[in-house]
Formats: sequence, C-alpha cells, structure tokens
Amino acid sequence: MRVRYSECDLQGVVFNAHYLAYADNAITELWRETVDGGYQAMVAAGVDMVVAEAGLRFLAPARFDDELDVEATVTRLGNTGMTTVLRMLRDTDLLVEVQMRHVFVDAGGAGKCPIPEPVRRGLTPHLVAEGA
Amino acid sequence: MRVRYSECDLQGVVFNAHYLAYADNAITELWRETVDGGYQAMVAAGVDMVVAEAGLRFLAPARFDDELDVEATVTRLGNTGMTTVLRMLRDTDLLVEVQMRHVFVDAGGAGKCPIPEPVRRGLTPHLVAEGA
Amino acid sequence: MRVRYSECDLQGVVFNAHYLAYADNAITELWRETVDGGYQAMVAAGVDMVVAEAGLRFLAPARFDDELDVEATVTRLGNTGMTTVLRMLRDTDLLVEVQMRHVFVDAGGAGKCPIPEPVRRGLTPHLVAEGA
Amino acid sequence: MRVRYSECDLQGVVFNAHYLAYADNAITELWRETVDGGYQAMVAAGVDMVVAEAGLRFLAPARFDDELDVEATVTRLGNTGMTTVLRMLRDTDLLVEVQMRHVFVDAGGAGKCPIPEPVRRGLTPHLVAEGA
Repeated sequence: MRVRYSECDLQGVVFNAHYLAYADNAITELWRETVDGGYQAMVAAGVDMVVAEAGLRFLAPARFDDELDVEATVTRLGNTGMTTVLRMLRDTDLLVEVQMRHVFVDAGGAGKCPIPEPVRRGLTPHLVAEGA
Repeated sequence: MRVRYSECDLQGVVFNAHYLAYADNAITELWRETVDGGYQAMVAAGVDMVVAEAGLRFLAPARFDDELDVEATVTRLGNTGMTTVLRMLRDTDLLVEVQMRHVFVDAGGAGKCPIPEPVRRGLTPHLVAEGA
Repeated sequence: MRVRYSECDLQGVVFNAHYLAYADNAITELWRETVDGGYQAMVAAGVDMVVAEAGLRFLAPARFDDELDVEATVTRLGNTGMTTVLRMLRDTDLLVEVQMRHVFVDAGGAGKCPIPEPVRRGLTPHLVAEGA
Repeated sequence: MRVRYSECDLQGVVFNAHYLAYADNAITELWRETVDGGYQAMVAAGVDMVVAEAGLRFLAPARFDDELDVEATVTRLGNTGMTTVLRMLRDTDLLVEVQMRHVFVDAGGAGKCPIPEPVRRGLTPHLVAEGA
C-alpha cells in the first residue's frame, strides 16, 4: 500500500491514527487470503468482529508516497477472541507495529460468539507463537 | 468548530476533502435546529438523504486550531431535492463555500421520496433566494 | 484502488468526502506517470499546487471492498491553472465524477506561478477537449 | 465533543482509528488549558512532540451524534517523555481508554529534547499516580 497525501500531517509524516486504519485493511486482506469469501462471507453468515484492544509502537515515521508492506500474524486464536500483530515496513525497516485483539460477535447484535470454523481453519496456518 | 491537527496536511492547511465533512456536520446541525428530533428522527421515520452534487470554492485556507463558523442557507426546496450553501468563515473572512444538492430517499432503499412535511416546515424559514 | 472499511458510513456506502481524497490520489498518480520525478520533484523544484474549485457528481455509490478505476483527464492547461476530470468507475459503471481546478503556486508561498515546463510537457498528451 | 457522521462505519459505531484522533485533540486542549500559548507556542519555541506508543481499550462503542467527554490525565512526566491517559465517556459510561506515550523532540529535527519548563510547570498539577 502507498501512503496518501491526505494521511500526512503538519509534521510531514503519517498521522498516527491512520495506522489503525492500515491495520484494519490488513485484517481485511488476511481474511481475503485465508477465509473463503473473505470478511463479507463471514458477516453474511451472521458473524462479525469488533476490536477490544489495540496497542501501537511507533518506531519510525512513514512519509507521503512511501510504499509500505504490512505483515499480518495471528498470535492467538481463542474461543471467541483473536490476537493479531500487524507489522508495517518500508523495505526492511519496521516503522510501526500494531497489536490488536478482536472479539467475534453475532452480526448486528452485541453478544460474543465462537470463531466460525471456516475462519479458524483459514487462520490456523498463520498462527505463530507470540514473539516468534 | 475548531480545525483538528489530523485534518491538516503537508501544505500546513486543512486538506480539501475535510470541508465536505464539515459541510455534512453543518447539515446535521441545521436539522437539529430546525427539525423536531433532528436528522435521526427523520431516518427513524423512514426517510434519508443522499448527496447528488457538491461544488466547492476554496478562497483561503483554514489552518490548525482555527475556529470556523459555518453558515447554512437553503437555496432550493424542491419536491424530492434540496440545495444548500455552506459558507465557512474565520471571523469575517470567507474561506470556503460549499454548495450541495441532496435528494431525499426511502431509508434503506434507493428510491426518491418527497421531502417530509416536518422537514419542509423546519427548513422553509431558512430558504433564501440563491445569490441573496 | 480498493474501498476501505473505514471509508464507509452508516448508509453502507463510501462517505462523500473520501471521493475528494481519491481524486487527490489520482492526481498524484497522474504526476507519477507523466512528470519526471512525479509530484515530489515539482515541489522540490519550488512549485506546488492548490485546489481552487472542485465539483462532484454522485451517480451511484461505491461500497466496501469495491475495486474502483479512476480515469484522469486534463481538460484545460492555462498559464497558472489546470482543470482535470477524475472519473471513478466500478467495472464500466461511472459512480462519481470529480472536476478540479488547481492553481500552481510558489511552494511555501502564496503567489501564483506558471505551470513548470516539465509538467506542461508531461500533461499535454493527456489534454482533451472538455466534453470529448 | 460530538461524534460526526463521517466517523461512523458500517457497524453503526465510531471507527476505531478515530479515537486516536480524539485523543490527539484532547492533548491539544490540555495544552491550551495548561501551557501559555498552547501547543503552538511550544512549537514556535522549537519543541515538538511525537507519539512513541499508544494503547486503546474499547469498552463500549460511541455512536453518531453522541456527546463525549474526554478526561485527560498525565501519569508520568519524565525527562524527555510523557505518558497520558485519555478517558472518553458518554455521561458516566467509560467507552474508550487511550494511553499514550509522547516523546519531546526538536521541532523539525529528530532528536529528543527535555520537556520545556513552561510545559512541565503547566502539566505538573495534572500529574496523578498511575491507577489512582
């Protein structure tokens, strides 16, 4: 992905909040690659996910027009929750690391629900031990 | 309203797209002041509105932490459509003028529908001849 | 380009302001393709551009995860100003058309300046008669 | 502050990234209340700040048009770094808690620098023990 002009602020770098949107996009792409029908198929089947916690470490700034790679890793697949780490790199430089904890919920409702089987099956190969 | 840090770009001024969001906020506030229950009541009653056209003239830039006033004027109330002009000022300086044409639609559907009576009643006092 | 989750609103479609950011991205890409060194080289050479006017026509909504093509056309190259039309399509459906008028300025200052020769040379092949 | 329409997503709630922008606004307001001349005076005096880490806990969603209060607390004032906690409430309900660690830097440069005296003086009354 490429950094957009509108995402950069007066300091000449990407405004911090946009990294959470980048992380969200990376989750969408992870679903596209690993779950049949992607995120939309999961929602159509009645399950959605919400963010419960996020942690961001800013190591170096991204700038306008930079091309970033985002590496997505699943570090925990619980019964109703999932933890992912999204690492944003420019070439080999790690710029920002985002850790997110999602909870699966009934789409439209508020109640937690188990991770659907097709999702668990798709994500399991991407599961690595935290810190690995 | 006050300009936020995250809305300013590398040129040191508000990025142009945010003025459309400011205009949208001004429409929400117009509804709050003129229509019983505001925008949400209209949607709850089954009517929503979509933007069909927008035109923006940028006369001078707004900057971080500026306090802006937004003046909303209705210039046309048709059967299913409405035209508004939103003028964004810093003190007495006109910075940006946005003209928007909205169309009223069935909430959730795509079909046009007449402007609801409570909305027409609320907005009519704000209707001025274009260019007045 | 792909529509991001964070760009969609309560109506289930892309919030109108984001199309101006899409248009801005398309201008950046037009520069990359046509001007040596792209937009950044122009700024480094002391010339920037600001938006003076924008007009948007919303024909149909884009939705989450849609892939959009943006066609950029230059419809006018004046002495200090340029008009472009950005057409956003999903497959062959035209969703939104944005017309923008930019003015070239001294980078950092406020004064107008002529379109730099490398820019004019790069854009001229993309110039088409308005309405063509 | 009031939640804007453009900040809400397909789930009907504020998109998570916007809470980091809300937190940034709260820091600006904290500066306005506690530091002579506010954030801009600090930058004019050659000192800026960057975010090194952020942590967000999402307890309940904010929705369109909600009025939120943001409580800012300083939990650590180091030599070159500061930790704040921003608690976003609707009435008495805590919706989101953001913890941020900022580092003070030479404006325009990349080097760390000590917290300026006027800033330290302004913030010290807002310093509370973490967890208090």
